Amino acid sequence: MDKKIIVGVIGTGRIGKLHTENIVNNFRNVEVKAVSDIYADKVKDWAHSLGIENVYEDYKQILNDPEINTVLICSSTNTHAQITIEAANAGKNIFCEKPIDYNVEKINEALEAVKKAGVKLQVGFNRRFDHNFKKVCDLVKEGKIGDPHIIKVTSRDPEAPPIEYVKVSGGMLLDMTIHDFDMVRYLSGSEVEEVYTNAAVLVDPKIGEAGDIDTAIITLKFKNGAIGVIDNSRRAAYGYDQRVEVFGSKGGITVSNDSDSSAVLSTEEGVFSEKPKYFFLERYKDSFISEMRDFFDAVENNTEPPVTGIDGLKPVLIGLAATKSYKEGRPIKIEEI
Amino acid sequence: MDKKIIVGVIGTGRIGKLHTENIVNNFRNVEVKAVSDIYADKVKDWAHSLGIENVYEDYKQILNDPEINTVLICSSTNTHAQITIEAANAGKNIFCEKPIDYNVEKINEALEAVKKAGVKLQVGFNRRFDHNFKKVCDLVKEGKIGDPHIIKVTSRDPEAPPIEYVKVSGGMLLDMTIHDFDMVRYLSGSEVEEVYTNAAVLVDPKIGEAGDIDTAIITLKFKNGAIGVIDNSRRAAYGYDQRVEVFGSKGGITVSNDSDSSAVLSTEEGVFSEKPKYFFLERYKDSFISEMRDFFDAVENNTEPPVTGIDGLKPVLIGLAATKSYKEGRPIKIEEI
Amino acid sequence: MDKKIIVGVIGTGRIGKLHTENIVNNFRNVEVKAVSDIYADKVKDWAHSLGIENVYEDYKQILNDPEINTVLICSSTNTHAQITIEAANAGKNIFCEKPIDYNVEKINEALEAVKKAGVKLQVGFNRRFDHNFKKVCDLVKEGKIGDPHIIKVTSRDPEAPPIEYVKVSGGMLLDMTIHDFDMVRYLSGSEVEEVYTNAAVLVDPKIGEAGDIDTAIITLKFKNGAIGVIDNSRRAAYGYDQRVEVFGSKGGITVSNDSDSSAVLSTEEGVFSEKPKYFFLERYKDSFISEMRDFFDAVENNTEPPVTGIDGLKPVLIGLAATKSYKEGRPIKIEEI
Amino acid sequence: MDKKIIVGVIGTGRIGKLHTENIVNNFRNVEVKAVSDIYADKVKDWAHSLGIENVYEDYKQILNDPEINTVLICSSTNTHAQITIEAANAGKNIFCEKPIDYNVEKINEALEAVKKAGVKLQVGFNRRFDHNFKKVCDLVKEGKIGDPHIIKVTSRDPEAPPIEYVKVSGGMLLDMTIHDFDMVRYLSGSEVEEVYTNAAVLVDPKIGEAGDIDTAIITLKFKNGAIGVIDNSRRAAYGYDQRVEVFGSKGGITVSNDSDSSAVLSTEEGVFSEKPKYFFLERYKDSFISEMRDFFDAVENNTEPPVTGIDGLKPVLIGLAATKSYKEGRPIKIEEI
Repeated sequence: MDKKIIVGVIGTGRIGKLHTENIVNNFRNVEVKAVSDIYADKVKDWAHSLGIENVYEDYKQILNDPEINTVLICSSTNTHAQITIEAANAGKNIFCEKPIDYNVEKINEALEAVKKAGVKLQVGFNRRFDHNFKKVCDLVKEGKIGDPHIIKVTSRDPEAPPIEYVKVSGGMLLDMTIHDFDMVRYLSGSEVEEVYTNAAVLVDPKIGEAGDIDTAIITLKFKNGAIGVIDNSRRAAYGYDQRVEVFGSKGGITVSNDSDSSAVLSTEEGVFSEKPKYFFLERYKDSFISEMRDFFDAVENNTEPPVTGIDGLKPVLIGLAATKSYKEGRPIKIEEI
Repeated sequence: MDKKIIVGVIGTGRIGKLHTENIVNNFRNVEVKAVSDIYADKVKDWAHSLGIENVYEDYKQILNDPEINTVLICSSTNTHAQITIEAANAGKNIFCEKPIDYNVEKINEALEAVKKAGVKLQVGFNRRFDHNFKKVCDLVKEGKIGDPHIIKVTSRDPEAPPIEYVKVSGGMLLDMTIHDFDMVRYLSGSEVEEVYTNAAVLVDPKIGEAGDIDTAIITLKFKNGAIGVIDNSRRAAYGYDQRVEVFGSKGGITVSNDSDSSAVLSTEEGVFSEKPKYFFLERYKDSFISEMRDFFDAVENNTEPPVTGIDGLKPVLIGLAATKSYKEGRPIKIEEI
Repeated sequence: MDKKIIVGVIGTGRIGKLHTENIVNNFRNVEVKAVSDIYADKVKDWAHSLGIENVYEDYKQILNDPEINTVLICSSTNTHAQITIEAANAGKNIFCEKPIDYNVEKINEALEAVKKAGVKLQVGFNRRFDHNFKKVCDLVKEGKIGDPHIIKVTSRDPEAPPIEYVKVSGGMLLDMTIHDFDMVRYLSGSEVEEVYTNAAVLVDPKIGEAGDIDTAIITLKFKNGAIGVIDNSRRAAYGYDQRVEVFGSKGGITVSNDSDSSAVLSTEEGVFSEKPKYFFLERYKDSFISEMRDFFDAVENNTEPPVTGIDGLKPVLIGLAATKSYKEGRPIKIEEI
Repeated sequence: MDKKIIVGVIGTGRIGKLHTENIVNNFRNVEVKAVSDIYADKVKDWAHSLGIENVYEDYKQILNDPEINTVLICSSTNTHAQITIEAANAGKNIFCEKPIDYNVEKINEALEAVKKAGVKLQVGFNRRFDHNFKKVCDLVKEGKIGDPHIIKVTSRDPEAPPIEYVKVSGGMLLDMTIHDFDMVRYLSGSEVEEVYTNAAVLVDPKIGEAGDIDTAIITLKFKNGAIGVIDNSRRAAYGYDQRVEVFGSKGGITVSNDSDSSAVLSTEEGVFSEKPKYFFLERYKDSFISEMRDFFDAVENNTEPPVTGIDGLKPVLIGLAATKSYKEGRPIKIEEI
């Protein structure tokens, strides 16, 4: 069978490995021809077990392979923009993990290169492909709730990251909330114009000492008149809490968490049900496959990917505004960024 | 049987009637000796059908009856403070419907009079006595969720009030959200220190023309470090939406809406369940009885009522701050009021 | 106010007291003029506190009072049939607690007397008036599930009764399941034609020693072709379990248990919700008021009561058939009884 | 990489294809070396697309390949027993789709051959591996509900099969309910001793004309004293309905259906949620992978497979007894079969 899409995966840490395995196991018309990793030695066995023979240390070997028409950029965040530019210049279609960068100028340069090269770019906001959130978006688009009035996102991690990570993360609002900023754009079908951050250090004082926050309520104003709110915590004792609600002129939609089973145990002590799925790779398992499917469809059919370069840029702008809002204690317009 | 609590009800509109009937039907040791209403003629038949013989036009006849030791003030809002003062001076125990007033000075005068007279005063924040919210409060107090981090209240009316009412209501934040300001104090066990209002006119442009808002997200900072958010709408198409969530260091609690039955109908078209109870008197039916029970207990046992004068004052202060925040587009500290 | 319905309550044990209080507190147009109890001395204070002056030892004093037009028969089961006959002969409308009797002949005699006298008779199958079950019945009648195919009732008590009670109860199938036999008739809108009982002693061996069972699955065939199943236990560790399901050609309806609040607590240990209401008087609280309302309506408007004498007879026939089925280990047709 | 388990798949209809794809996509240490199908031509392209080069018309070519150590028997039911015997004689480990046969003698012959050959045999009762049912079983085994008293299974198909299929299916109780007979054994941890069938033709009169039933309630007695009930319909308008409940001395466990999302839409018309997953391959998707995983583990570690030959036999015995019960209108002991 001729495979039309020949992929190279750049960076095979946790998320790079996941995408690679998803492609091998689910897309028979897509070939992963090569992977690159700065620790190539460590991932060789893994790659070979998947039938991938080419394992490079230098991602440029992937960019230089004319047979490879598509790359996945899964390397560390600070390399995303640069590799995107090089990959675009090499004429490759690009799936780039989020965020492209935290620097707006760099993002714009990367988007410019992509535009000039006329290649596809999809950014890895996988949650849009989650069965629950996609259903909400579909129902909103179908007009079931009329005009959106209030968008609500609850997003709480099961555990705070290590302090060393917190220090280099860019701050919770850019590291964690960025997914939620994408989500509110996705669900509202509109752009955020203003943001106000009410945040605190309640989970771990060390996070405060590292200059970050761990608990936040962020309110938003949208161009279409709707208003929104995101609440975040770095640590929900009961697990990974990922819910949304969209309320509008004709009604509302809510989605609750996924869990491992629907079992409900009733005893003298009470009525017990399962906790939410704990780990994001479990919770969003299928969404990672779906985003790949839509990306490959866009490449194959020469259509616009479902998450574009602009979709990569906007959440960063909102995140920067939210951070500024927290620091200055006032609402910030996105255009101030 | 000797009845120790002899009640006079001042104002027998919707809520005054409700309290009167609740007392007659549920508290055999309490006697409603008299009611007063500026339209006494219109309520005579109703009162007599309950076995209440004394129906006055002038509430002072109630205050002048030495046998009556307790009054319910259910007249129009602008009379609450004045009648509270007079009733206190007459040595009556007082149940006063919310709010005492929208003017802080007037409230303080009333509280002063109550204090001086040494009578009981309970303010009618009935939602604290709701089975769902009371359970949340109890679980929080028992430490089940550890330290509170995030308090969330969703409060949406089934229908916007008439524009004529909107014009004199004091504004949505004082008229409707005031219940939610009481609720966050109740659930957090702490005082609000700062408030920020993100609001819009989305339900009905006429509300905007009348100078008010109809949709709002209000964020809050509490003295104990917790943060909170209230979202309001004057019109939820599916009915009266009253939910809360408290999230803390050890977990979270949510409560959902009450409905008329637990029936779930599954057909080819989908899975249908009941809408939330539509009308606040239905939704909060039992809470009105419970608040009376606790008030009479406080009177009888000479203990502090569960909702004090201060509990009547604070939500007004928060409401004034929230209104100012909306007008000035910035977070407002309560101490600025 | 002239009260058209003047009631005498015969027997003021737990259920007699409940009905009396419900009438006094909820039906201002109904007067409870007298109560009778073989332990009249013990209930005098209670009656007087409700404003009921006449407390008799002998129920005949009630039957002899020409002003009383309606009686509630709440005395012990073995007196129901006899008092029903006497009350009918005295021209009183009758609300009789379930069952009329366990002896079919006696029931028929009572029904005959009622028919001859032309008085109203309603039997106390209160569960038909429960908000959940009524909703199911309404949806079935509206044709929402098409033709009924399968009727399922789960009915489990929170605790087994004392062994002394078990011995005189007539057996679980007549004492406890009788409510469920009424329920399946109510929900199916059809008559049971055949019954098969699969039962065991699993809760308490003493119940077996007393000649009874404590756990049962009873299957049913209905005249309209539908089939059904009831499952019973004398003891559900988590509380009073009362659920039904009706499945038909166009879909299905289920109802779940009521609980004290909708609170859901999520912690590291799991997700906890409230147990079902434990006590039948709590669980079915409102249904007892509703059945009275409908009874008084039937009396006042001279219409057929919602639960007739035949509705009192049929469940006893099914219960006798179910008992015979258990003893003989084979399905039993109702016509065999 | 050396693959220890070399598989041949016999029969590549719907379920054979599913297993093959699941192995290729999920078990890198397992090789599918060959498939056979009486319509080999029709499946060649499919097989090659998966990298399987050997596609035979005659399954004996698989049995004769000494490198193949494991076979999946997915051919038509009437060939299962014979091929099982031949595969056992050829020393292959066997995964055989359910049922082995409807003839008890033939099943026993097959089991005998497997025993003599000392090979592994797992029977394809995949529902045991479903996330929901497995959780129930685990909780029961952990003693969370104490001793099981009542086992309930609701199992309804979304659509009746074609009449031509009904005619050769062996009857609903053997064709469809057989899964539920396995389920009650799995959940109760005990053997069925007696069965009574209450059945009807309510979905489609043509099914009755074909000599079968389409709606049934089957009650069961277990060796450990517990009792049980299964309710079946060939057609649930709302989709595939698969629920169980286990009730015991210390409490109960229920599981509900899976659906595509947790979205709940509330509008003026009502509150809508998703229907159950409609198609069994979707509903039980992961269970098919899990049963393979456990089978390969048993082969690799030389342990007993989780669903043994006896587990293949027993549900057939219960199904035959249930059929006899329906025909004779009386409870049937399994030992009568």
